[in-house]
Amino acid sequence: MNDVIRQIKNRKSVRVFENKSIETNVKEEIINAAFEAPTAGCMMLYSILDITDQRLKEKLAVTCDNQPFIAKAPLVLIFLADYQRWYDTFCFEDCNPRKPGEGDILLACADAIIAAQNTVVAAESLGVGSCYIGDIIENYETVKEVLDLPDYVLPAAMVVYGYPVESQKKRKKPIRFEKEYIVFKNRYQRLTEDEHMKMHRIRNEKRGLENRDIGDGIKALYNRKYASDFAQEMNRSAAQYLKNFKHK
Amino acid sequence: MNDVIRQIKNRKSVRVFENKSIETNVKEEIINAAFEAPTAGCMMLYSILDITDQRLKEKLAVTCDNQPFIAKAPLVLIFLADYQRWYDTFCFEDCNPRKPGEGDILLACADAIIAAQNTVVAAESLGVGSCYIGDIIENYETVKEVLDLPDYVLPAAMVVYGYPVESQKKRKKPIRFEKEYIVFKNRYQRLTEDEHMKMHRIRNEKRGLENRDIGDGIKALYNRKYASDFAQEMNRSAAQYLKNFKHK
Repeated sequence: MNDVIRQIKNRKSVRVFENKSIETNVKEEIINAAFEAPTAGCMMLYSILDITDQRLKEKLAVTCDNQPFIAKAPLVLIFLADYQRWYDTFCFEDCNPRKPGEGDILLACADAIIAAQNTVVAAESLGVGSCYIGDIIENYETVKEVLDLPDYVLPAAMVVYGYPVESQKKRKKPIRFEKEYIVFKNRYQRLTEDEHMKMHRIRNEKRGLENRDIGDGIKALYNRKYASDFAQEMNRSAAQYLKNFKHK
Repeated sequence: MNDVIRQIKNRKSVRVFENKSIETNVKEEIINAAFEAPTAGCMMLYSILDITDQRLKEKLAVTCDNQPFIAKAPLVLIFLADYQRWYDTFCFEDCNPRKPGEGDILLACADAIIAAQNTVVAAESLGVGSCYIGDIIENYETVKEVLDLPDYVLPAAMVVYGYPVESQKKRKKPIRFEKEYIVFKNRYQRLTEDEHMKMHRIRNEKRGLENRDIGDGIKALYNRKYASDFAQEMNRSAAQYLKNFKHK
């Protein structure tokens, strides 16, 4: 197994950081990894906000579903799907561009996330842990205001980085579902009820939770995630962002 | 510089592949890297289609803006943002779930792309080149039919992989814009016209195109990309996919 694969396998999210800043050259390497990522048409349809203002970190820790560890991360980057830059360029050159549409913003989101994941992989190789914060999509009005976001920009992801404390290094990586329920040949395969239950049963067994009621586990996750206030807010807020991207 | 960073820097997209299949164990390593990626709530909000049917590859080469090299790639994976699997699970458990919304699908897109980028990084470390095909978002009706996609699934990206021919290995990596135009401290910084022009001028210089008229270059890109038929089709099609994700 080569170093790259080994590190991809070892990498797990880190939510408790040592009280230690990230050295300038290490931070540079992490951010540079974003630029090395593939990008549609070499257009770089993203911008990166480097959140260094402690009060702003604390604000974002609140808007992102109240997660105080965000404010304690020595490095906080927000990856913006950005069509504003190109739209403005086209306007300056009198191209009379149409407004960016749904496809444009999905492509820009992909660009932003590809760049983000390169930084996560690079950080891991430098001993720096990381955690995605999807909750940056919430609270459209507040986030737009505090980050000065123009209309053709959407926060695709926030990532927080820092040196992991010992207990986080030792934490077991969460068990994934088996490949056969995730990878399909040629066509999508909708799982039957039996297959769903088997998928969860196998994961529970691998987790050492073979006695846990599968239905209870699913219902708990449903309540904690899908039916939660933050998920509702994420949907409301995402709809607001997407309203700015209508090709018709 | 460690191996991971070095490979991230060296990696560039490959569009011409050797006529050589990817060994089973190498393919396994590439796909496994997807599962090792971070995923929101460990929910794995994605599925992966492994396109092995040559006629289907040829079909996709057409629906993805007529790019014949797609059909020649020995490995073609489609990364689907997938809320169908969890929605179905919640239904089977009588949770009476709401329909997936805009935030849910953006989160699932992020999950899918994070997984995709891990495969791209892993492939590079194994000598396998890759190229993202954003055009998989186009042609909603046809793609949905040929891949049997249910309503709560959206193709976030296609990636094609293969061993690069010598000329592709030697190809220069495209020059990116300078960091100062992409990374901002704390707040988004909308570029002035002068800054836009400088950003393009510096890139042209680094490309050895210092005599190229900046306006001409931007207009050419505008016509080739933003005002193109494929971009219009991508917007139309993406709007169709997103129609299925309305939280209200």
